[in-house]
Amino acid sequence: MKSVPAERTDDALWQQQVRALIEVGRELHARGWVPATSGNFSARLSDTEIALTVSGFHKGKLDEAGIMRADMQGCAVGSDKRPSAETLLHTQLYQRYPDVGVVLHVHSLNATLISRAVQRSGTHDLVLAGYELLKAFPGNTTHATSMRVPVFENEQDIPRLAAKVDAWLDANDPVYGYLIAGHGLYAWGRDMAETLRHLEAFDFLFECDLRERGMRNT
Amino acid sequence: MKSVPAERTDDALWQQQVRALIEVGRELHARGWVPATSGNFSARLSDTEIALTVSGFHKGKLDEAGIMRADMQGCAVGSDKRPSAETLLHTQLYQRYPDVGVVLHVHSLNATLISRAVQRSGTHDLVLAGYELLKAFPGNTTHATSMRVPVFENEQDIPRLAAKVDAWLDANDPVYGYLIAGHGLYAWGRDMAETLRHLEAFDFLFECDLRERGMRNT
Amino acid sequence: MKSVPAERTDDALWQQQVRALIEVGRELHARGWVPATSGNFSARLSDTEIALTVSGFHKGKLDEAGIMRADMQGCAVGSDKRPSAETLLHTQLYQRYPDVGVVLHVHSLNATLISRAVQRSGTHDLVLAGYELLKAFPGNTTHATSMRVPVFENEQDIPRLAAKVDAWLDANDPVYGYLIAGHGLYAWGRDMAETLRHLEAFDFLFECDLRERGMRNT
Amino acid sequence: MKSVPAERTDDALWQQQVRALIEVGRELHARGWVPATSGNFSARLSDTEIALTVSGFHKGKLDEAGIMRADMQGCAVGSDKRPSAETLLHTQLYQRYPDVGVVLHVHSLNATLISRAVQRSGTHDLVLAGYELLKAFPGNTTHATSMRVPVFENEQDIPRLAAKVDAWLDANDPVYGYLIAGHGLYAWGRDMAETLRHLEAFDFLFECDLRERGMRNT
Repeated sequence: MKSVPAERTDDALWQQQVRALIEVGRELHARGWVPATSGNFSARLSDTEIALTVSGFHKGKLDEAGIMRADMQGCAVGSDKRPSAETLLHTQLYQRYPDVGVVLHVHSLNATLISRAVQRSGTHDLVLAGYELLKAFPGNTTHATSMRVPVFENEQDIPRLAAKVDAWLDANDPVYGYLIAGHGLYAWGRDMAETLRHLEAFDFLFECDLRERGMRNT
Repeated sequence: MKSVPAERTDDALWQQQVRALIEVGRELHARGWVPATSGNFSARLSDTEIALTVSGFHKGKLDEAGIMRADMQGCAVGSDKRPSAETLLHTQLYQRYPDVGVVLHVHSLNATLISRAVQRSGTHDLVLAGYELLKAFPGNTTHATSMRVPVFENEQDIPRLAAKVDAWLDANDPVYGYLIAGHGLYAWGRDMAETLRHLEAFDFLFECDLRERGMRNT
Repeated sequence: MKSVPAERTDDALWQQQVRALIEVGRELHARGWVPATSGNFSARLSDTEIALTVSGFHKGKLDEAGIMRADMQGCAVGSDKRPSAETLLHTQLYQRYPDVGVVLHVHSLNATLISRAVQRSGTHDLVLAGYELLKAFPGNTTHATSMRVPVFENEQDIPRLAAKVDAWLDANDPVYGYLIAGHGLYAWGRDMAETLRHLEAFDFLFECDLRERGMRNT
Repeated sequence: MKSVPAERTDDALWQQQVRALIEVGRELHARGWVPATSGNFSARLSDTEIALTVSGFHKGKLDEAGIMRADMQGCAVGSDKRPSAETLLHTQLYQRYPDVGVVLHVHSLNATLISRAVQRSGTHDLVLAGYELLKAFPGNTTHATSMRVPVFENEQDIPRLAAKVDAWLDANDPVYGYLIAGHGLYAWGRDMAETLRHLEAFDFLFECDLRERGMRNT
């Protein structure tokens, strides 16, 4: 997706993104990936604004009141709704990648467990190799490859965490998601379809890796 | 939620709580958390009365006949329906905490297994630490904390069990749920939305803990 | 349920049992308990006849054509539909217990795995103890009890298997189900609601036992 | 199913197969068997043509635009849609077996994990034995049998992989599916109902085998 010019940030695009975020919330809650009002989702409105879930809402039962506009500094636009503390983790991706249209953050069981397992093993990234499903990510044309997914230590200081994410993304090969230990997964893509594809592929590969750790350990 | 004044215990509130209990039954049965007519749910009507599921009904297929009024001593009000033997475990929470509006008791697989695992390990509580999802509970503002969930030995003598629960709650930091070994989870909150949030967070954290025990043991 | 007198085996009762069997098929297939057209279900029509699923139909997509009448010898009544080879395992229960109204046979993963695990351990029954959910079965009033579920070796010679089941039931305390190794579970009750309650409780307890074997072994 | 004569490859048959492929996509995606646009499905139109899912579509949200006609060489017929790279793995089965009407390829977790476990164990096939559900496959009349499912090394060179599949099928007893390591399962049958039956039976048996490997290893 090309970035949407500011003049097109009209009501039609807002309505479309609101519907997409409501629908993805239902889908992801049904899978158990956003338990207990956790997680947050956003979609690009323009070079300077995004639509974003409001903090604390049940993600399986969103309506338009649960979505807000925010600017790239993570401040509310046109309302006094409270953006999630983690809004900066969304906006940094829209600013870094002009073709990113959607960011989804989930707390799936697999993301939580694999991120803690990686941390316990004393390493800072998860290496996924040999799976056909690696081809779900742009740039992978064969299973005979490997992909590194960074695992950041959890922080409540979001600007500090955002800085670590930026530093890692500056220094490494392109990736479409990262883990925060004991917390969850951030994933992104050009549009909702691509981002969901990445999310499904990540969660599947995390589960494979967790199950194989179990088998190897025994 | 402030406690509801007695004079407002009218039919409209009754109808609203009945609908909420029917709907939550469908949701929790679909997740497998109330197998085989197990579990029971209640919602506050006033300082002196609650709406409560009748003993022995299928929790995924409730209708108004499956809900009854009870007073704070656990006796039926306005009907000869049979309250669950465990009604006292509900009413003690409404009496102890004026702002509690909903109590949900489930027999999920994770609650059953973790409560037995804690008991086998010779301890009397489950300590959950380091998870972002701990922030789903009021008072937790960071993952860098730990939460103790008590595990009581199962009893068929409900007044005796209720006394043990009261003693524990008197002596410890606030908590929003407890386990009964080989039996299940009691969870509570101000209203249905908060109580469901606590329930989802508990079950997720129980599953994480069970899976990590498995990984540590191997 | 009292046994239904023969003169009431009218079309209304047939229609009611057909609807109940179609609905339970959808439910049990959605849970994955009757994979690949496996499983079979029956409901009593009278002292001499039952309604029974026809062999080989997809249990999640049944219609009236997938249900037939059979007599207590397992022969088709009023049609040339083919009863399942295992029909005798149903009829022996209706003949033995006049108050049994429904028999459900499923191939759930938990039933399959636990039956093989018991067999590998060199024993012939599964002992379930200490679970609150044991109270889902008539006669259990406390968790502080244990229940033996027999596990029969699988056979293709159904009359021989039926004879072994009869002999076991003659010699032991009442039970509401049995396992066939590597095959599945037979469960029964007075009516559909009670039989489903037994089925859900069995499967939950089988899963608990499997998971605890895993934890004990490590 | 007898092979469909070429002259019947009319619009009615096309519409029927399109509907069947759309519906099976929804079903299999709901089970998590085609994550992230993976998997592909086909149904025979005639001796010379099949209906086939277009590469890269979300399999749970297919519409007619996501289905195309292809000939037995894997080339698009009547459109410039892009057939999946793996089309040859479908057409080789329709050419080899005149009575095959449907081929379903899925990336289920169980297929992925068992195929890698077999490969790690240094063998080239999975042997399934002693399960009642083996009778879901034509030719098996008792649980007291065993079935070999080949596991091929994953390849991006599809003609080479197809040649290995042909060689294996030439040399061995009939089978209704095969695994590709770290990739997934191909399964086939006379029609959609039979192919789904095989698919459900395979996945169930793969899960049993994976779980028993876990139990044996501990």
